[in-house]
Amino acid sequence: MQVLQQQFQVPFSYQVIFTKHLFDSSNKTLCDFISNFGQSNFRKRILFVIDKGVADAHPSLTTSIIDYFESNAIADLAPEILVLPGGEVCKNDPRFYEEVVRAIDEHRIDRHSFVAAIGGGAFLDMSGYAAAISHRGVKLIRIPTTVLSQNDSGVGVKNGVNYLGKKNFLGTFAPAVAVFNDVAFLATLEDRDWRSGIAEAIKVALIKDLAFFEWLEANVEAMNSRDEAAMVEQIYRCADLHMKHISGGDPFELGSARPLDFGHWAAHKLEYLTDFKIRHGEAVAIGIALDCVYSHLIGAISLADCERILAVIKGLGFDLYHPALAENDCQNLHKGLQEFQEHLGGHLTITLLKALGKGEEVHEMDFPTIQASVALLAKHA
Amino acid sequence: MQVLQQQFQVPFSYQVIFTKHLFDSSNKTLCDFISNFGQSNFRKRILFVIDKGVADAHPSLTTSIIDYFESNAIADLAPEILVLPGGEVCKNDPRFYEEVVRAIDEHRIDRHSFVAAIGGGAFLDMSGYAAAISHRGVKLIRIPTTVLSQNDSGVGVKNGVNYLGKKNFLGTFAPAVAVFNDVAFLATLEDRDWRSGIAEAIKVALIKDLAFFEWLEANVEAMNSRDEAAMVEQIYRCADLHMKHISGGDPFELGSARPLDFGHWAAHKLEYLTDFKIRHGEAVAIGIALDCVYSHLIGAISLADCERILAVIKGLGFDLYHPALAENDCQNLHKGLQEFQEHLGGHLTITLLKALGKGEEVHEMDFPTIQASVALLAKHA
Ligand SMILES: NC(=O)c1ccc[n+]([C@@H]2O[C@H](COP(=O)([O-])OP(=O)(O)OC[C@H]3O[C@@H](n4cnc5c(N)ncnc54)[C@H](O)[C@@H]3O)[C@@H](O)[C@H]2O)c1
Ligand SMILES: NC(=O)c1ccc[n+]([C@@H]2O[C@H](COP(=O)([O-])OP(=O)(O)OC[C@H]3O[C@@H](n4cnc5c(N)ncnc54)[C@H](O)[C@@H]3O)[C@@H](O)[C@H]2O)c1
Ligand SMILES: [Zn+2]
Ligand SMILES: [Zn+2]
Repeated sequence: MQVLQQQFQVPFSYQVIFTKHLFDSSNKTLCDFISNFGQSNFRKRILFVIDKGVADAHPSLTTSIIDYFESNAIADLAPEILVLPGGEVCKNDPRFYEEVVRAIDEHRIDRHSFVAAIGGGAFLDMSGYAAAISHRGVKLIRIPTTVLSQNDSGVGVKNGVNYLGKKNFLGTFAPAVAVFNDVAFLATLEDRDWRSGIAEAIKVALIKDLAFFEWLEANVEAMNSRDEAAMVEQIYRCADLHMKHISGGDPFELGSARPLDFGHWAAHKLEYLTDFKIRHGEAVAIGIALDCVYSHLIGAISLADCERILAVIKGLGFDLYHPALAENDCQNLHKGLQEFQEHLGGHLTITLLKALGKGEEVHEMDFPTIQASVALLAKHA
Repeated sequence: MQVLQQQFQVPFSYQVIFTKHLFDSSNKTLCDFISNFGQSNFRKRILFVIDKGVADAHPSLTTSIIDYFESNAIADLAPEILVLPGGEVCKNDPRFYEEVVRAIDEHRIDRHSFVAAIGGGAFLDMSGYAAAISHRGVKLIRIPTTVLSQNDSGVGVKNGVNYLGKKNFLGTFAPAVAVFNDVAFLATLEDRDWRSGIAEAIKVALIKDLAFFEWLEANVEAMNSRDEAAMVEQIYRCADLHMKHISGGDPFELGSARPLDFGHWAAHKLEYLTDFKIRHGEAVAIGIALDCVYSHLIGAISLADCERILAVIKGLGFDLYHPALAENDCQNLHKGLQEFQEHLGGHLTITLLKALGKGEEVHEMDFPTIQASVALLAKHA
């Protein structure tokens, strides 16, 4: 038997650049990136696609972009700036990603050219998918505009759309060539969206970084009063932990390495049970609360630590409980655990806490203890 | 300005395994691969999708697959074996890849499970695309059944379908987890398909490997008489050169590294000009002839070398010329050169020959010399 062995590594690198007012004519961040990217003898084109929620909240955005590229001749700006709905709706209907693909073709964006996507996590997932499958991947610049997309989804390597009624059924792993976190966008977020993304910071702090958890604890008030500097620090630290997890592990999840999904098994189920009426971060906050109480009930963390965690979550304005958790004697929730196991290829792995700032993987969860955890949380309702 | 730097490498490895009668119950090749793949605590499922041209030519194929998985309990065989049209038609109509995605969902093929695709290059491109975008990539096993797919497309890292009237507009880079080259499939190929793929061997031999070119020269007769051992050796050497090119370069074409496309600029145009009536390999054979004559006319290779090349191409039964080359005073062909440049991001790079077995990149081609090359080839029509 003859065999040919193939083996190679594909290197990826990108920066997440923190800035403010990216399209101010005096802001050279984007300009410098594009000018220095790739080889100078390739012609560069750039197509902008924008989340309608952002465009509506920032009415002068498209004009600023046009002006920016007029005063900085760094790339040919496509004459069309595509504005499409943001939020989950843009991932549910294939017409939206097809519309981005259509524009990529029409404006001759090739593998040396850019799609720059401005929007929340859902919009970046959708437009990133369109960019990844066109010409086997045109260069993607991400400009996330929500807390969650700046501290988590936008700095990672995934994209996706929903299909056949399943979340993220279609998608790829495709790192952006650059991410620009512009804090000015966050000012127009609804309170719920401002808060929601902070759940991912609590998640990653609890399993990886006690000092960050303590920082969050000390900054509850600042977050609640929408302090910009505090928010930037939170995003920076949270994004950093997420990025290190990706590069230190199995970025494209080819083996059995797993994403940072503490608190997420229950959160995913809760999103479905509530028909996605609660935000992802709101569901994650409840999922974290549940897994912390569970960790306490099995003796892994103390009552005092558990209460400290719940106080931070609650202090930030999150609910700790949702009635859907208890429905049907918690059987619906339990089904979520089975689905999670199924999703992992039949072998369950759940992250719990063994201390503040220290996660621990387990391979089973006890149903009566889950029920007891839900009952305890219900008292916080 | 704060910046987070992300940097990682994603490792890929797979084997191309040469075998015969892959689904004979006594053939343990596939069985061993699946048993040893990944972690044993994950449940493995496998879905087969088959090119109808292959299924028709090998009527007992599906039964053999079912029997194979019955006698070897290595994975859960999906109860449905999908047979879909092969050839370019399966890349032209999105219904076909959507059908593969539907089956992946229905048979719960997850990231730990396999899609095994059996077929020609077009079918593997289509089904590989479906596998790559489902769940951000389920594991793909490729079982190529044409010469071209065994020596070139099937051992590489690309997939794709046609969209908006453009070839391979949608696609990704997604290496298979294994490739099984089963020579028994080749027996049922039409002569045109048996021959066509050999053009890729001539291509890669001419630019990289004089000894291989000389081997091809010595084996024209064996190829023409459909000698199986000669074909296997040709495929092995050709696949090896392609795979080394990929791993030694820029596998996902993230920078400006380029695929092995000697002879391909004219070939691509010829496929369009003839409405894809001539096979890819047939077009490549003519494209190689053209670039060899051109290389000779600009003094890069001798007349004797040029004639040696043309003799091999012709000896294998390929045409050296097609009237579409000369149409419109070669303006149509010339447009193909401009489109190729456009496709490369505005910066033209063409491989020509500087010796037998040695390619050389140039960044311009002289139109009158192209016309003269076409005129010379016309004499061979
Ligand atoms: N790719 C990943 O790794 C990953 C990880 C986690 C979550 N996600 C996905 O992210 C999505 C959730 O993202 P999200 O939390 O950013 O919410 P979102 O994208 O759903 O946006 C919420 C709403 O805010 C609007 N909006 C966005 N930016 C705004 C701004 N600056 N001002 C005013 N309105 C604005 C949007 O139009 C939308 O209506 C989900 O689809 C989830 O699956 C992806
Ligand atoms: N992914 C890549 O890197 C890459 C590289 C080169 C070419 N390609 C693609 O490959 C395609 C061409 O592939 P091809 O040359 O293998 O032809 P093909 O896939 O178009 O197949 C030709 C015909 O042969 C039939 N067939 C396949 N195997 C058979 C067998 N064993 N017996 C009888 N009939 C059989 C098919 O049903 C089809 O009708 C093109 O779409 C081209 O774009 C892809
Ligand atoms: Zn999350
Ligand atoms: Zn080719």
